[in-house]
Amino acid sequence: MNRAPARHYHRRVDLLASLAERLPEGAVSTHPGELTSRSRDAWPLAMLREARGERLPRPMAVVFPRSTEDVAATLAWATETGTAVVPRGAGSGVCGGAQAVWRGVVLDLSFMNRVLAIDRESMAVEVEAGTRGDRLESALNREGLTTGHYPQSVAISSVGGWIAARSAGQASAGYGAIEDLLLGLEAVLAGGDVITLRATPRSAAGPDLRRLLVGSEGTLGVITQARLSVAPLPDGYRWCAFRPSSFADGIALARDLAQRDVRLMVLRLYDEADAAVTFGTLGHEDGPALVVGFADDRRAGDILEDVGRAASSAGAEPLPDAYGEHWWKHRNDAVDLYRRIMGEERMLGPGVVVDSAEVAGLWSGLSRLYAAVREALAEHAARPVACHLSHPYRSGASLYFTFLLHGDDDQVAERRYLSCWRDAARACHGAGGTISHHHGVGILKAPFLEEELGAAGLAALRAVKGALDPRGILNPGKLLPGEP
Amino acid sequence: MNRAPARHYHRRVDLLASLAERLPEGAVSTHPGELTSRSRDAWPLAMLREARGERLPRPMAVVFPRSTEDVAATLAWATETGTAVVPRGAGSGVCGGAQAVWRGVVLDLSFMNRVLAIDRESMAVEVEAGTRGDRLESALNREGLTTGHYPQSVAISSVGGWIAARSAGQASAGYGAIEDLLLGLEAVLAGGDVITLRATPRSAAGPDLRRLLVGSEGTLGVITQARLSVAPLPDGYRWCAFRPSSFADGIALARDLAQRDVRLMVLRLYDEADAAVTFGTLGHEDGPALVVGFADDRRAGDILEDVGRAASSAGAEPLPDAYGEHWWKHRNDAVDLYRRIMGEERMLGPGVVVDSAEVAGLWSGLSRLYAAVREALAEHAARPVACHLSHPYRSGASLYFTFLLHGDDDQVAERRYLSCWRDAARACHGAGGTISHHHGVGILKAPFLEEELGAAGLAALRAVKGALDPRGILNPGKLLPGEP
Repeated sequence: MNRAPARHYHRRVDLLASLAERLPEGAVSTHPGELTSRSRDAWPLAMLREARGERLPRPMAVVFPRSTEDVAATLAWATETGTAVVPRGAGSGVCGGAQAVWRGVVLDLSFMNRVLAIDRESMAVEVEAGTRGDRLESALNREGLTTGHYPQSVAISSVGGWIAARSAGQASAGYGAIEDLLLGLEAVLAGGDVITLRATPRSAAGPDLRRLLVGSEGTLGVITQARLSVAPLPDGYRWCAFRPSSFADGIALARDLAQRDVRLMVLRLYDEADAAVTFGTLGHEDGPALVVGFADDRRAGDILEDVGRAASSAGAEPLPDAYGEHWWKHRNDAVDLYRRIMGEERMLGPGVVVDSAEVAGLWSGLSRLYAAVREALAEHAARPVACHLSHPYRSGASLYFTFLLHGDDDQVAERRYLSCWRDAARACHGAGGTISHHHGVGILKAPFLEEELGAAGLAALRAVKGALDPRGILNPGKLLPGEP
Repeated sequence: MNRAPARHYHRRVDLLASLAERLPEGAVSTHPGELTSRSRDAWPLAMLREARGERLPRPMAVVFPRSTEDVAATLAWATETGTAVVPRGAGSGVCGGAQAVWRGVVLDLSFMNRVLAIDRESMAVEVEAGTRGDRLESALNREGLTTGHYPQSVAISSVGGWIAARSAGQASAGYGAIEDLLLGLEAVLAGGDVITLRATPRSAAGPDLRRLLVGSEGTLGVITQARLSVAPLPDGYRWCAFRPSSFADGIALARDLAQRDVRLMVLRLYDEADAAVTFGTLGHEDGPALVVGFADDRRAGDILEDVGRAASSAGAEPLPDAYGEHWWKHRNDAVDLYRRIMGEERMLGPGVVVDSAEVAGLWSGLSRLYAAVREALAEHAARPVACHLSHPYRSGASLYFTFLLHGDDDQVAERRYLSCWRDAARACHGAGGTISHHHGVGILKAPFLEEELGAAGLAALRAVKGALDPRGILNPGKLLPGEP
């Protein structure tokens, strides 16, 4: 899209000076601490590598835009000079999508963090892309509103990151995932052109370019602002919990509840291994556990009755409501939870790595998907693989596996990690699932994208990438396997 | 994407013979009646032109594929020979999206009409793209299921057309629009490559290519199969109706109901002009009318109470339930309705054309959008402009205007038609709306797409089109203004 001739700079310092002169003072940093802290996101393999002292790809600079114009100036410069740009929200991605690249710059959007407007009549909020989830929630909660978007990372992730990585929150059964909340969007394309897609409840004016950017992981454009749908903040939540006689019976019950459309906000079914650690402190003994949550409003009594009746018909035993309250309270304590799941003080190196795989599929294939992916992971895992079903839909659900790998040293652990993922992806696709429900692709899953989309699907995505970013400056090496 | 060298045929007969040899016998028709009947869709301007004896663009052949392979062979041939292909479902589009082009072929999918599989566990149906809506509904209804997708055109439109033109049914408030129902997709790209996008409730494996094809109107690929989400068929429907004191008060009440999330299936607010003709036979006297419908299940009593309370607080008077039943029964009698709205026996020529414009916007701008578009249309219309609000969302709604233009002769009517649309689009965009909620773009609204998406947005869409269809063979002249 950009027609400007390429410029060549022989020295990095000249190259960066040519960027700095287009931006407000102080926007370009080469401070070593900033370069290091922006070299990776929360991808476990990168953390393992870092922990063992390996040098991760380091950007030559971190750019801190304060406006859409700053982002546009940076991308225009990047296309002209052929410099790679890695957009970064809050850096909580777990697949390497925000990992820096050598000789590139990281575009850190964290100063673009204003809540611009709340439109109560349309129940919508306009917000800059670098705004962190907890700040957005605070601003909305003060008005009695919420996005209803609660990823585990809510306090360490940003609105732009949610959209770029196709986030889904823990209450997505009630509020929808990020794409359902997205009304309007502003983004900057590779050449520096700004696209502003008007906020609308729906439009049939051509293919939805908003949706093309959802899940694009910074490879097609940089999201700078969004308008999201919001909902009234409920007064509180109600919880109930059950022990199905088996995980398979639990899946059938979860499906029944999802298809009855009983207005749940949260539905989580833990297999025995996951239930043991998640609810161990509550005295959970054995078997799976199903936790259901919903808004505590005047319909709560009806929902409670519906859910109880369905559980009873399915032969599931009641468990204390405290299961749900406990989970809700501790839902974002990922590290602590992982430690308990894995029974290790150390979650990372030497030789140890913990990761999660969140696949999804239709109900009719879900038991098979569970068995296939679990078996593939268990081949490599040093501890029992834990799994829970979450994010239920009328047509299917997500399965979230947590697993720990252990090698005699980090090199062995890394090889095992890569083999384990390769096998899990193959098992997932073989069982008709998708390799990601809400974590995205990044570097980790890029090798599996051809299997996911087919050769023609991948070629189509590459063609779109090539059209929108002909010089390949936007987050190279992410999402798409290899270089186009 | 296609690398085969272009071939040149000097004679049309040789060109078509080279296509026919790749397809089963009888797949390529040059029967004059078939060429004529596939020359246009239901775009009123094309019908006006036809009625006055003007020659519409006529394809050189109509191709009837019976399989995805036939579609692939046709598109490979088209890209090799540089021949334009106009995909056609059932031909009910109202914006010229399926109008034939000179020296092109029409790809009529009506023989690809099988319901392939019903997956009750996942509540999903797999269906060929040429399947008509009424046939799909019959197949599902026999199993106690429904798509819940009821466009007015349901008996004269196809699954592929729904997806390609981003259809929304009259009960979309309850069941979602076509994109919400779409789980998986098979499509053929310009060069003949087949992409198969697995059915999944959700995936974060990159940008959603399914969604790129939704609303693409045959310009990016030809949809051959889809998997759609289905729902239980309700036992029946319940209706209630009210007369708000003004259309503005009605908008406020509609918003209240949409945001209360009372599980409506249908919500329609008619302005005085529209109410007078839609409910005239029921003795409706003056003022607007709000009709609300929902499934007649055990929650119906609660919904009725919620809606009644909201209406009463808003000062709206109850109207007979027969309003809803009457509308539901006659909802697809478009021609009859138009006639009554417009008070004309003739809906088309000489000198007469009736059309509808369905815009959408956020609640906070909806009254302004209503006033602006209505005024722009009224400048040109020969009868009072009628409008109803439908398809409510938490963030906004659609406004559907019906208008009649009258010129002393057809040429004057055509000029007036084009000016009227130009002014309506400008008014819509000026008031922050989108120019199409569910009719799509076609030829009619292509000139307004730059205003809709901005220059950069349109350039991005053109770049995507160029990447996926480098020779521009897929439905040229539709969706995108001019030639790329």
